[in-house]
Amino acid sequence: MSDDGVTAFVPGHVTGFFSSHPDEDPTKAGSRGAGLTLSDGVTVRVTRVTPDTRTRTTLDGSELVVEPVDRVLDSLSATARVEATTELPLGAGFGVSGALALGTALAANQAFDRRLSENELVTLAHSAEVRSGTGLGDVVAQSRGGVPIRLDPGGPEHNRLDAIPASTRIEYLTFGELSTESVLSGDTARLTDAGLQSLSILTEDPTLSTLLYASRRFARKADLLTDRVREAIEDVSATGGEASMAMLGETVFALDTGLSDAGYDPSVCHTHAAGAALLDEPTPPTAAAGPPRSDNAGDL
Amino acid sequence: MSDDGVTAFVPGHVTGFFSSHPDEDPTKAGSRGAGLTLSDGVTVRVTRVTPDTRTRTTLDGSELVVEPVDRVLDSLSATARVEATTELPLGAGFGVSGALALGTALAANQAFDRRLSENELVTLAHSAEVRSGTGLGDVVAQSRGGVPIRLDPGGPEHNRLDAIPASTRIEYLTFGELSTESVLSGDTARLTDAGLQSLSILTEDPTLSTLLYASRRFARKADLLTDRVREAIEDVSATGGEASMAMLGETVFALDTGLSDAGYDPSVCHTHAAGAALLDEPTPPTAAAGPPRSDNAGDL
Repeated sequence: MSDDGVTAFVPGHVTGFFSSHPDEDPTKAGSRGAGLTLSDGVTVRVTRVTPDTRTRTTLDGSELVVEPVDRVLDSLSATARVEATTELPLGAGFGVSGALALGTALAANQAFDRRLSENELVTLAHSAEVRSGTGLGDVVAQSRGGVPIRLDPGGPEHNRLDAIPASTRIEYLTFGELSTESVLSGDTARLTDAGLQSLSILTEDPTLSTLLYASRRFARKADLLTDRVREAIEDVSATGGEASMAMLGETVFALDTGLSDAGYDPSVCHTHAAGAALLDEPTPPTAAAGPPRSDNAGDL
Repeated sequence: MSDDGVTAFVPGHVTGFFSSHPDEDPTKAGSRGAGLTLSDGVTVRVTRVTPDTRTRTTLDGSELVVEPVDRVLDSLSATARVEATTELPLGAGFGVSGALALGTALAANQAFDRRLSENELVTLAHSAEVRSGTGLGDVVAQSRGGVPIRLDPGGPEHNRLDAIPASTRIEYLTFGELSTESVLSGDTARLTDAGLQSLSILTEDPTLSTLLYASRRFARKADLLTDRVREAIEDVSATGGEASMAMLGETVFALDTGLSDAGYDPSVCHTHAAGAALLDEPTPPTAAAGPPRSDNAGDL
């Protein structure tokens, strides 16, 4: 247990479409849907502080309160300094709050030697997001990486996942924020109908092109398109590209060179094959293991 | 569908312990257990050839017959040239046959535009390995990456996975081959008892140190240690490190600098956060999609 902190990287995640599935139990609540995880993501460093000090979280140097992060640290009985950096905008549909929660869970588990499994940590972070109303499916997708399809709502104990076996360059452009909380607290019946239809379309043909088609169909049927997003998607389509809207943000994402071909100046990244993971793990403490250590290699 | 071929990378996988669970249905058959996926792995390039040409597979330039690869290509109705390269030794417990099967599935799906999902491709490769008698759990672990714990046997439709949330440098050293087929075709009752005990130990404390302890315990109880492997593990232990035996090969693997600290000259790699994935995906064919394309962005 070093005082130097532990660092995790969590990929960004743009959701193309989703359906909302509330449940009393936050490990069962969540969304079904699909999206792309991104090589642009969030790096989270967790450092132990003395228990009489309060937990502090910074994002790119600015202090802020991130409710899911505080919930995760509470669940792990951890008082910590959480320092995060990201190239992604907040509140624009990239799963930054989910990434903060999941990165904190992974890094704090190591920094505080809590010895939880990956599924347990993903469950903690997913539940924290659901309880805070900040997201429904990003954490689960970010724990997997790639181009995940969430076949069931909920955390890893309840959720079946599949994926589109593909990787691609991604371009994105953000015009502004949308509040996940305000959309999800409204009438989600229409949105959920549209999301389930898109999921059915995608599972019949799990390819990137159909993901983008099913995502545009969802954005239109759920009535979530803003004028600027609609225009950018149409511009990309007019030059033969594939784009859709990130749920939930005033953000357009495109496959490959879709936005630049249409004359925009987007940010560029790539799908991210790996899920959230620790970086720079220190040498495992060879003298600190539990009861099994008495029955060591010396017995061989 | 380019004639230039499609390339996938699949991480190597050392199994620390396992239990064997045969089943008539190869998608349900397999092993439970745990191990580490490795940044040393297998790169597989699949190129379409004309159907009147036979399928050919090469590994590091030498032609060879890999039964699971042929089964995967048959399942995908694909006649192909499969060119693989690896820094890992064959038959020494690194999951090379599983990697060849899984890499072929991922790359051929793309090269032949078969439009299967990731789970479907992993199921194909897992079933091909099980039917060929060359492996029971590598494919599933290699599709996930990281440090996977296989809680159930079988492919993705039947298998729950968890993982140790850690990354580490890995060292390994191979003395020779062991035949997976001959061990698995013998009496596996004792081995499976030992494997289930080790799984129970690890799920109670999902850390790298306990993985290595549970693996050594399995190797001893299943009576699989050779003299050279036993000696190397004891040497690592004597210098305060953690090592065990790769199942199934005459191979020792160690966390961090375990083998070099003990005076050996091992190969060095790292755990691999990502599962098997395509590389260098070409621009998605924007004119080749299925029925949904008529309802395109123009409708927005």
